[in-house]
Amino acid sequence: MGRRLLKIEYDGTNFCGWQLQPDVRTVQGELERAVSKAAGKNTRTVLHGAGRTDAGVHALSQMAHFDSHSSHSCHTYLHAINFWLSTHDISVRAIYEVPDNFHARFDAVKKTYRYSIILSETKRPLFERYCTRIDRKVDINSLNSAAELIKGTHDFASFTASGGDTESTVRTIFNSHWIREGDMLNYFIEGSGFTYNMVRNLVGSMTEVGCGGFSLKKFESILECNDRKQAGPTAPPGGLMLYEICYGRSLSLFNKYET
Amino acid sequence: MGRRLLKIEYDGTNFCGWQLQPDVRTVQGELERAVSKAAGKNTRTVLHGAGRTDAGVHALSQMAHFDSHSSHSCHTYLHAINFWLSTHDISVRAIYEVPDNFHARFDAVKKTYRYSIILSETKRPLFERYCTRIDRKVDINSLNSAAELIKGTHDFASFTASGGDTESTVRTIFNSHWIREGDMLNYFIEGSGFTYNMVRNLVGSMTEVGCGGFSLKKFESILECNDRKQAGPTAPPGGLMLYEICYGRSLSLFNKYET
Repeated sequence: MGRRLLKIEYDGTNFCGWQLQPDVRTVQGELERAVSKAAGKNTRTVLHGAGRTDAGVHALSQMAHFDSHSSHSCHTYLHAINFWLSTHDISVRAIYEVPDNFHARFDAVKKTYRYSIILSETKRPLFERYCTRIDRKVDINSLNSAAELIKGTHDFASFTASGGDTESTVRTIFNSHWIREGDMLNYFIEGSGFTYNMVRNLVGSMTEVGCGGFSLKKFESILECNDRKQAGPTAPPGGLMLYEICYGRSLSLFNKYET
Repeated sequence: MGRRLLKIEYDGTNFCGWQLQPDVRTVQGELERAVSKAAGKNTRTVLHGAGRTDAGVHALSQMAHFDSHSSHSCHTYLHAINFWLSTHDISVRAIYEVPDNFHARFDAVKKTYRYSIILSETKRPLFERYCTRIDRKVDINSLNSAAELIKGTHDFASFTASGGDTESTVRTIFNSHWIREGDMLNYFIEGSGFTYNMVRNLVGSMTEVGCGGFSLKKFESILECNDRKQAGPTAPPGGLMLYEICYGRSLSLFNKYET
């Protein structure tokens, strides 16, 4: 009984994204079926995700809540859902008993995404499942100069694909930086929220700056002009990972089972 | 013309191992076909690998040589072989022009393997392709006490599966240690060579020590008794990666193309 919040990890390679759609395999679809089975229900249990991820995008930590008609303990629920998932590419890693007014999406105060790039002229079989490969030289300092400009509150219309469901494209970015480790580049962005395709569009234009295709001034003018057509290409989905979601109320205070 | 040495990366998940076998997909089989095509030959080009990897085992850096009847430059050869490979799970990352008496296997003086473990009670979709998951508590200090005993020259008969093609099971281990980073455990072992299934058998018995199933004394007695039946289980292949192969003659001295 009551509302439960799930922490979910998935490999997005073989999903048509998070959101439930008819006739295709989605993370929400697989999870709703497993949660319904775990709750012993024959009707659909609706899951409310903290955010949607596109086809091919991964999640280290997606969050979603549902209203339970079962009184399973957190431990029983977690293992029952994972049992019914019976697939290797989704896993429920934690479950929390949250108040009925808690909402996985509306109560999120910060989301973190990571975008990973591997620099190599030749294919990298061991890396390309979770990284986008770039075969050009990329300057980390130029990437970070562009990443710095994104911080703060901006209208991200230039980096928003059509098809999203929110009217405002204004978001606040708390942190935005690239880290290089050998041939790997990892971009971390933390924000109040993200518009449709925003991280992949930002990465696409930042890598143009890093490769010398765009000047930093050009990148700044794209951010300011609010015109999607000025921006660079959308970076591929496989390099993107929903990394963490933070809530105003600490989840550690709730009854829970974490693995 | 002359002998060429290849540095090869592969994801072993969808291969029946390195060694050529009829009617199944092997790394050697795919590579020999691509090298023959790249050389413009209709007959088979034989590849001599530095070592065999089992089904499911990955390689960050496998080495193999062949005798070329083409005078392609290193750059042309590398791109031609990768073009003919036309698969995402093998890549040739470097090519060297080596003397005719150079042998990928017999001239190797040190091989390094890595074995990766992820500690988690629940599935880890983003990690299990390249790690073995253990859902018990593992003590890193116990792992390292066992790893320390392996160093030096020993008869590894207790850790050798039947079916190998060498008579002696004596090998010299230069380095053997576990590193913990968060929920990840990485084991690095460097040696003069390895008997059939040796690394996976060592990891299987060391993790028994780490989980408290075997005492350190028991592990030591297994190493000394030269009896395979005393050892623990064989660790699964997916956590294993051929990490590096070192030669007596530095490859940097040869004409080459590295990516």
